[in-house]
Amino acid sequence: MDKINWKEVKTIAFDADDTLWRNEEIFMAAQEDFIRLLLDYHSEDYIKSHLSAIQTRNLAIFGYGIKGFTLSMIETAIELTEGRILGREIHEIIRLAKAMVSEPIELLPNIESILQQLQGQFQLMVITKGDLLDQESKLSRSGVAHYFDYVEVVSNKTPEAYEEILSRYQIKKSEFLMIGNSLRSDILPILDIGSHAIHIPYAFTWDHEQVSESDLASYPHIPKLTEIKELSLYV
Amino acid sequence: MDKINWKEVKTIAFDADDTLWRNEEIFMAAQEDFIRLLLDYHSEDYIKSHLSAIQTRNLAIFGYGIKGFTLSMIETAIELTEGRILGREIHEIIRLAKAMVSEPIELLPNIESILQQLQGQFQLMVITKGDLLDQESKLSRSGVAHYFDYVEVVSNKTPEAYEEILSRYQIKKSEFLMIGNSLRSDILPILDIGSHAIHIPYAFTWDHEQVSESDLASYPHIPKLTEIKELSLYV
Repeated sequence: MDKINWKEVKTIAFDADDTLWRNEEIFMAAQEDFIRLLLDYHSEDYIKSHLSAIQTRNLAIFGYGIKGFTLSMIETAIELTEGRILGREIHEIIRLAKAMVSEPIELLPNIESILQQLQGQFQLMVITKGDLLDQESKLSRSGVAHYFDYVEVVSNKTPEAYEEILSRYQIKKSEFLMIGNSLRSDILPILDIGSHAIHIPYAFTWDHEQVSESDLASYPHIPKLTEIKELSLYV
Repeated sequence: MDKINWKEVKTIAFDADDTLWRNEEIFMAAQEDFIRLLLDYHSEDYIKSHLSAIQTRNLAIFGYGIKGFTLSMIETAIELTEGRILGREIHEIIRLAKAMVSEPIELLPNIESILQQLQGQFQLMVITKGDLLDQESKLSRSGVAHYFDYVEVVSNKTPEAYEEILSRYQIKKSEFLMIGNSLRSDILPILDIGSHAIHIPYAFTWDHEQVSESDLASYPHIPKLTEIKELSLYV
């Protein structure tokens, strides 16, 4: 089990989107529908890259989540059509947003059985980034909310944000383990503060969440999905 | 001081919008600009009532905050023009949203001196409803963040949400005082759970936040602004 001393760990926190349940695919599907709306004006690649640029530009203003994504889609549609886009086409984008908000939550494989195994042996948390209402709504629709002792929604997963949570709950860094799919948000800041992390890679990872190979090379081995799958053997 | 036993109170939590700083005016100003965009199509009153209806309809989907408000403005503009609104006019609405996000924070009178007086004598918190990113950004721009021991952003101020916070921070209900401008969000749920509340009325209160006179009649006297102004005399 490499660096993780399981006897020491008392609190395990899970990321939510693309760790507990599928999320990125919902955004990807909305993006596909969005691209279709604009194919009369531009090529798929051009629309994609423009949307990605506007999303990145808007991130500090609108943050993560469906509403910010929707405003970025609307802005992209207006810019790419030089304002010629029709009101009813923009209405279509808002409908996409509303459909995303109520999309059924699909848990990732093994999640429920892992939570069942861990419950009672560890203090369990969700630490997720994004829109407060979106995240609360997804957790409540997920059917797994009852496994968690605490839920924290943060606007950004920085080392400082994690330290603030640990101090608030009086959790020692050496006793804390974070599990998530994003190296940038769930793993690197956790290793920075000296806690434990397990990376569960996810097939899709949003541009903004990606870190380069060279960033990774400087970090020690990060335990992988198979280890959390077999976690119950070790506790 | 009526019902509040000041010797008992150990934690004071403030609402943020329209309690610590002006907020409603920023939404009102954006709404004025929005109405101006649509005056060629409809009367001011008609636009206002339609926007208010769409906001209420969207509240469960998009929540409180600038992004949800903006999506409701866009949807209203599309509906009221039967889709004839131009892309560049919708872009104007998104620009309004971006301006709102970076609007300077104007503290309400006496707030800073009250916080100075209370600091060190009580554990101080902010409990605010709305968009996580908006609220964190406003607090950080307000210049008063350092007075508060804890900040909680919730999606809805229900009795259960307050109870959850009190239990998480191990605060006794009898030792907790909430101060805010909204009877519906800051005062009634607090009295429901048996804690203390002080109402600071604010000149503007959004439709959705209003409670009827008859709701109020059934509640005991709620201490008013003047009392918190003179709070330092009592502690």
